[in-house]
Amino acid sequence: MTTKTKDMPLNFDRPVTTARTGLREPLRLEKWLLRRLLTALGNPDIAFRLWNGEEISGVRRPRTAEVTVEIKQPHALWGIVANPDLYFGDAYSDGAIEVHGDLLRMIELASVHNPTFLGEEGALGFVIRLLAPAPRVNSLKGSRQNIHHHYDLGNEFYRLWLDVDYAQYTCAYFPRPSMTLEQAQVAKMEHICRKLRLKPGDTVVEAGCGWGGLARYMAAHHGAIVKSYNISREQVRFAVAKAREAGLADRVTYVQDDYRNITGDYDVFVSVGMLEHVGAKNYGLLGSVIDQCLKQDGRALIHSIGRNAPREMNRWIEKRIFPGAYPPALSEMMNIFEPFDFSVSDIENLRLHYAETLRHWLRRFEQHSGRVHEMFDERFVRAWRLYLMGSIAAFKLGDLQLFQIVFGRGQHNDLPWSRAHIYADD
Amino acid sequence: MTTKTKDMPLNFDRPVTTARTGLREPLRLEKWLLRRLLTALGNPDIAFRLWNGEEISGVRRPRTAEVTVEIKQPHALWGIVANPDLYFGDAYSDGAIEVHGDLLRMIELASVHNPTFLGEEGALGFVIRLLAPAPRVNSLKGSRQNIHHHYDLGNEFYRLWLDVDYAQYTCAYFPRPSMTLEQAQVAKMEHICRKLRLKPGDTVVEAGCGWGGLARYMAAHHGAIVKSYNISREQVRFAVAKAREAGLADRVTYVQDDYRNITGDYDVFVSVGMLEHVGAKNYGLLGSVIDQCLKQDGRALIHSIGRNAPREMNRWIEKRIFPGAYPPALSEMMNIFEPFDFSVSDIENLRLHYAETLRHWLRRFEQHSGRVHEMFDERFVRAWRLYLMGSIAAFKLGDLQLFQIVFGRGQHNDLPWSRAHIYADD
Repeated sequence: MTTKTKDMPLNFDRPVTTARTGLREPLRLEKWLLRRLLTALGNPDIAFRLWNGEEISGVRRPRTAEVTVEIKQPHALWGIVANPDLYFGDAYSDGAIEVHGDLLRMIELASVHNPTFLGEEGALGFVIRLLAPAPRVNSLKGSRQNIHHHYDLGNEFYRLWLDVDYAQYTCAYFPRPSMTLEQAQVAKMEHICRKLRLKPGDTVVEAGCGWGGLARYMAAHHGAIVKSYNISREQVRFAVAKAREAGLADRVTYVQDDYRNITGDYDVFVSVGMLEHVGAKNYGLLGSVIDQCLKQDGRALIHSIGRNAPREMNRWIEKRIFPGAYPPALSEMMNIFEPFDFSVSDIENLRLHYAETLRHWLRRFEQHSGRVHEMFDERFVRAWRLYLMGSIAAFKLGDLQLFQIVFGRGQHNDLPWSRAHIYADD
Repeated sequence: MTTKTKDMPLNFDRPVTTARTGLREPLRLEKWLLRRLLTALGNPDIAFRLWNGEEISGVRRPRTAEVTVEIKQPHALWGIVANPDLYFGDAYSDGAIEVHGDLLRMIELASVHNPTFLGEEGALGFVIRLLAPAPRVNSLKGSRQNIHHHYDLGNEFYRLWLDVDYAQYTCAYFPRPSMTLEQAQVAKMEHICRKLRLKPGDTVVEAGCGWGGLARYMAAHHGAIVKSYNISREQVRFAVAKAREAGLADRVTYVQDDYRNITGDYDVFVSVGMLEHVGAKNYGLLGSVIDQCLKQDGRALIHSIGRNAPREMNRWIEKRIFPGAYPPALSEMMNIFEPFDFSVSDIENLRLHYAETLRHWLRRFEQHSGRVHEMFDERFVRAWRLYLMGSIAAFKLGDLQLFQIVFGRGQHNDLPWSRAHIYADD
C-alpha cells in the first residue's frame, strides 16, 4: 500500500467499480467456493448475486434471503473466498461488492458462527497471507507514523460524528441506554474519575489523550492537575487551544511526545484508548514507565479494547484503518502489571457500551456522509462505514471487549471497602 | 513427613522444645548469617536472641527492638537462615523459636520489604530445596488426599472459629468494616448472588462447596436449585444434615465427587475457594467442564485467592497446612477462560477483606486455643496461629490477592448496563 498524503490513507489500487458488463461467465469452481464460504459462515440468511445475475444461497433456502451480497467482478469473488478478513473490506470499499439490504445485519449474520468475521480465514487464506504485508511495528518512529495515519485525518472529519463537547474517540459509558452520546461520554469520564478516586490537587499523568477531553474534565470537575502525552500533532494543537479557551491552561499541560518519555511523580496514571496502539511486546516497557512515574500510594487506570483470547487483529482494519493496532487478551495485558507486582483491584468489561457508542457514531457519520465524500471520496465513506459496522458486530458477537483496569501498588492499603462509591448518586 | 492420622497432620519430627541449657556457644558464622538475614529483610525493628542470651539486631539499632525472636537451638538458626520460607514455620510451631512481642507485627515487619516472607529464600535455600519434598500433585486421587489433609481435621475444629451461621472458610465481604464476621459472610454470599443476578428457579452448579453454606443461602434467599460438588466426606455429611434441618433438601443436592465429574446444564456456575486446589495445569480442564455445563445464556463466577505474579506457594504452608494449594496470578487464571472464548465481565479484588476475615478468625481461634490444644497439641496451635497471621500479612503486605471473576459466553448480550445493581440497597 502506498500512502500519498496523510489525508488519504485509503487509496486502493482500483477505481470504484460501477459497471458489470462484458465479464466472463462465473466458473463452476467459483460457485462451489461461495457455497463453501456460506457453510463456513454457518449458512446465514445471506445470498450471493454474481456479475451475471445468478444467485447462490444456503442449500436449504429457496426463498429470498434477508441480505444479498452482489459480487460485481471475479477478482472480488476470489478475494473474499481466499481471505474474507482482508478482502471483503477492500472489495466493499471500492464498490466491487455491493450489499442489498442491511449491511450491519449482514455483518452480524456472518459473525454469529464466526466470532472473528471479519476475521475468519478462508480456505486459501494461508497463501494470501504469505503475500500480505506484515503488521507495522510500534517503534518510536513507527508509532508516530501509525498514529498520524489514523488520527491526523483532520480534526474536522472526527468532529462531524464524535460527541460535540469532548470529542472522545473511545468507548462511552451508558448506565442508561437512553443517554445521548454527549451524556454518555461525560458519564465515561466521571466513571473513570470515580474509579481513580480523583480529588482536588491530585497530579495526573495521562498516556495518550486524544483531543484532550479527559484532561480538561479532570481539571474542571475534579480540580486535578493534569499532564497529558500524545504523539499526534493535530490533536495536541487542538487540545491546547481548547484548554486555553476553557481557562484551564494553568492546570492542564499537553505534551507532544511518546508515553515512553513520561517523567515525574504522579498521584494518578491514566490511559484511555492508547494500549491498542502500544503493541504486546511493549507491555513490559509500559509497566516500567508506570512503575517509575506512579507514587507509592498512586492509583492507576487503563481503558482499552481487548479480546477474549490472544488473536491477530483483523487484517483489513489493521491494514486500511488502524495500522499497528492490537487489542490484547487479559492474559497479555497482565504483562504490564505482573512484572512490577502491581495489584489489580478492579476490571470492568464495557463491550456492549462500545457497540452502543459505535451505533451513535455510525448514525452521525451517515448523516454527514455527503460531507465526508467531499472531504475524501466514496471509497473512504464505504470503508469507514464498514469499519464502524464491523466493530459493532465484533463487540456484540465477535470477541472484542472493552476493559477498564484499576490497579496500584501491592502494599498500598488505603483502598475503599467497596465499589459502591462509583455508583453513589451525585 | 509422615501422617499418623487425618486428625493430626502436624506431627513434626522433634518434640516441642522448652529447655535451652547445655548447648554450645553460637559460632561467629551463625551471627553473621543472622545479620545478613536482617539485611535481606530490610533491617526491620526485630532482634534475634540466641540460646546463650546474646542479641543480634540491625546495625543501627542499639535500643530495644520492637519484637525479639528467640532462637533456642542451633538447628532452628540454620533452618531459618537457609530457608525462612519453610523452616520458620516449623521452628515456631515446635517451639525451637519463640517470639517476644507481637507475632503478627513481627510477620508484618518482615513482610514490608519482602512481599514473599514467609516466602523469601535465604542464601542456602537452593540446597535445602533439593532436599525438600515436591509439591503434591492434583490428580483425582491426589486431590482427595490433599483435601482430606486440610478439611477433614474435623468439623468441630473449624466450628470453633468460623462464622456460626454458614461456616464459610473463604474470604468474607466487609462493605462496612464494623460488620461482624457473621454479617460479612452473609454479605459475601449476597454479593456473589447479585453479581450472578440469581433469580428464583435458576439452576446452579457449585464446584467445591465447603460445608454447603452458599448453596443453602442461594436456595433459601434467592429460590435457586443448587447442586454442589465437594470431595470432602465430612463436609458433605455436615452439609446434607444442615440442608435437611433447614427444610431445603428438595432444592439443594450435595454430591461427594470431583468437579471434573460435573454433568448437566445449568443457568449458573459458581466456585468459591476451590480454584486454589485445582492446580494451574488443570485450568484448561476446569474451563472445559464449565463450557460443557453452562447454558448459552449462563452466568458464572469464580472466587479464589490469587497472586500479583506467578510464583510458588509458600513452602511451609504448602507442606504443613494446605498440601497441593496454588494461588494463581490473573494471567494464569485466564487459561480457564481464553480457550473457550468466555467473556470476562467483572473482576474485583477483595484482598483487604481477606485480611479482615483472617483477623476475625484469629481472634476466635485464640479464644479457643485451649480447646484446640486439647483436640490436637500445642504444636498444632502454634502452627495454625502462624498460618493465620502469615496470611493476614500476605494479603496486606505480600502479594496474595482475592479475585472474584464474573464471566459468561462471548455472544451472550443480556447483560446489565452497569454494576449499580450490586450496590442497590435492599
